[in-house]
Amino acid sequence: MEKKPKIVILGAGYGGMMTASRLQKSNAHRDADITLVNKHNYHYQTTWLHEPAAGTLHHDKTRMKIDSVIDTNKIQFIKDSVVEIKKDEKKVILEKGELDYDYLVIGLGSEPETFGIPGVTENAFSIRSVNSVRLIREHIEYMFASYNKQDEKHEDVLTFVVAGAGFTGIEFVGELSERIPELCKEYDIAREKVKVYSVEAAPSALPGFDEELVEYAMNLLESRGVEFKINTPIKEVQDGRVLLADGEEIKAQTIVWTTGIRGSSIIENSGFETMRGRVKVDKDLRAPDHDDVFIIGDCALIINEEINRPYPPTAQIAIQQAYTCSNNIKALIEGKTELEEFKPDIKGTVASLGGKEAIGLVGDRKLYGNSASAVKKLIDNRYLFLLGGMPLVLKKGKLNLF
Amino acid sequence: MEKKPKIVILGAGYGGMMTASRLQKSNAHRDADITLVNKHNYHYQTTWLHEPAAGTLHHDKTRMKIDSVIDTNKIQFIKDSVVEIKKDEKKVILEKGELDYDYLVIGLGSEPETFGIPGVTENAFSIRSVNSVRLIREHIEYMFASYNKQDEKHEDVLTFVVAGAGFTGIEFVGELSERIPELCKEYDIAREKVKVYSVEAAPSALPGFDEELVEYAMNLLESRGVEFKINTPIKEVQDGRVLLADGEEIKAQTIVWTTGIRGSSIIENSGFETMRGRVKVDKDLRAPDHDDVFIIGDCALIINEEINRPYPPTAQIAIQQAYTCSNNIKALIEGKTELEEFKPDIKGTVASLGGKEAIGLVGDRKLYGNSASAVKKLIDNRYLFLLGGMPLVLKKGKLNLF
Repeated sequence: MEKKPKIVILGAGYGGMMTASRLQKSNAHRDADITLVNKHNYHYQTTWLHEPAAGTLHHDKTRMKIDSVIDTNKIQFIKDSVVEIKKDEKKVILEKGELDYDYLVIGLGSEPETFGIPGVTENAFSIRSVNSVRLIREHIEYMFASYNKQDEKHEDVLTFVVAGAGFTGIEFVGELSERIPELCKEYDIAREKVKVYSVEAAPSALPGFDEELVEYAMNLLESRGVEFKINTPIKEVQDGRVLLADGEEIKAQTIVWTTGIRGSSIIENSGFETMRGRVKVDKDLRAPDHDDVFIIGDCALIINEEINRPYPPTAQIAIQQAYTCSNNIKALIEGKTELEEFKPDIKGTVASLGGKEAIGLVGDRKLYGNSASAVKKLIDNRYLFLLGGMPLVLKKGKLNLF
Repeated sequence: MEKKPKIVILGAGYGGMMTASRLQKSNAHRDADITLVNKHNYHYQTTWLHEPAAGTLHHDKTRMKIDSVIDTNKIQFIKDSVVEIKKDEKKVILEKGELDYDYLVIGLGSEPETFGIPGVTENAFSIRSVNSVRLIREHIEYMFASYNKQDEKHEDVLTFVVAGAGFTGIEFVGELSERIPELCKEYDIAREKVKVYSVEAAPSALPGFDEELVEYAMNLLESRGVEFKINTPIKEVQDGRVLLADGEEIKAQTIVWTTGIRGSSIIENSGFETMRGRVKVDKDLRAPDHDDVFIIGDCALIINEEINRPYPPTAQIAIQQAYTCSNNIKALIEGKTELEEFKPDIKGTVASLGGKEAIGLVGDRKLYGNSASAVKKLIDNRYLFLLGGMPLVLKKGKLNLF
């Protein structure tokens, strides 16, 4: 009997989780030993994390046990952290062991991009995991709880700086501006004591997005008390203080960093050639010169040839890549050599703004308010449906559409 | 027309609030100008505060707007803090003004007793106000939230020291031990990582209380994972560390101080003669040599002549004093000179232990578990009934008796 090929999937984010799910559904485990490795025993929806970070949604709604979606009799699950990929030895070093592979899928996600600005890692929070957003939520509440216990009131305790007005930054500010009135009530604090700054280096919030929609979003958030500092690069982050390039300084005990991401440093450290931590993959999603390594999600760089610039890393693309990746692995273990090409099919972009508010662009159609918010929830629910069918939608979905 | 006498009540705790309520009910405001002064615009039940501190009850359940109980058309309410009482000038200095009085009621409550142990004020929390217990609750949650974000796990983050195993300390430990399993679930932490120490200098927990009941309480709390250090004085409290007299040291990021109270320092600073901040009042509750000043609640020292020791300051005594005090004021403004003597009528003592557990002594009868817990809730509800009738019981009461 021939030895079954070993497939190892690193990371259970959108890409890795969906690849595992597709392989299981296509019965690939009959012809291959498939192993999924993840740091936690749960999968979470990264694009929802701004909500538990602000405290408007419980974090359990954004995550699910991996073995509730993947049948671990069919796909082995290992809870461990990846230390290094030894691609020449076809081996993965984990904290507590190692794994050989015939085919590897790298879906290790991202890290915050600090652009080398000093003090970010030490002094700012980032929205990137269940653990990190739970801490942000509790930190915010702790700030409110401590204010009335201070003998001398320090306003920086109630000042919140969100660095970066991209999608994550804007969505977080949206949730935060919805939560603040509740926190003011809970802790007996007047709303006007609380300051929220959205700071962006580029000349616009949501750089590159439709101008009319950006204006709608900014007006809405300003009406909830958010102050924008656009075209304002950050020079340095210190403990309790943000130094802006224009010389101004904002004292704030809460600084949340959302200026974008780079691919996981594990990839760079394992000897792959990267740009901002991302590998420019071949059309079939394999790493150049590595026919046995697929790279998907935030770690993969795909060029949008229409504008000759990379697609921004999104959940939408990661999920679509998982379909191509799992089809190609299935083909390879069936002995085929012709692989599918990955072609992103961007269905639209919607940013939630907290409450029942959102903005979106679906094709050429602009969406505002309620309808954009409902579309956003449909997108979130559709992912759950693709991953775990109707039961998962009912369990973890956003069912209050309007 | 004769000028109405001015009655000023300082503090809206059990004593002050009930005095105001009794004066209003007896229509004393027809014959006198009555003013109630309090730091906050709400009254709270101090004896419940261990619950919101542990996070097992929302703090709004322990407080009520003063004007929801007192008719401010009948009794003037001033939200301000007392700075000093100038008793020779019959005047009270507030932060934002001053008040003259003909009769003064001092119900300014208490401060934590530190026994001069270094570092307590700077490094320990205390259970004494809505603001302080909200901070404790959030601090505890923050500790749990930060644990999984630490690169190196520091166990002191999940170590909780409660200094003092008197009623407040034991009741707080009871609630905390009920809450910890929930927090472990919420933050993905194994229960055995969490340590709770109850440290007491005296040779027993709940010093002076019935031994059998104390043993019941300790066994129960130990079964929930609490570690007792009895007969163990504390030498010093440092940032993140408790030094015990026996040379041991406990590293803990959360230290809650519950070793007893002393009367408000305002009284001492205003020239009254005090013992641990409390004034040994005359039988009619007036301060010696000050016929126009009544002192009630935690600021008043009453000797239990049977054992020649002071009664411990309790809500029960404060409430009973308010009855005597309001009767005596009423008598004075009606021109009577014969005043009522205060005689405490101790109906019993019950300590809650979290969940449906409690211990109690009512007369000679010992109560355990469910029945003690139900009696404790009846006591809490009875107070609400005396203060605001059935509507207040329904709004703020503990209605899940069993």
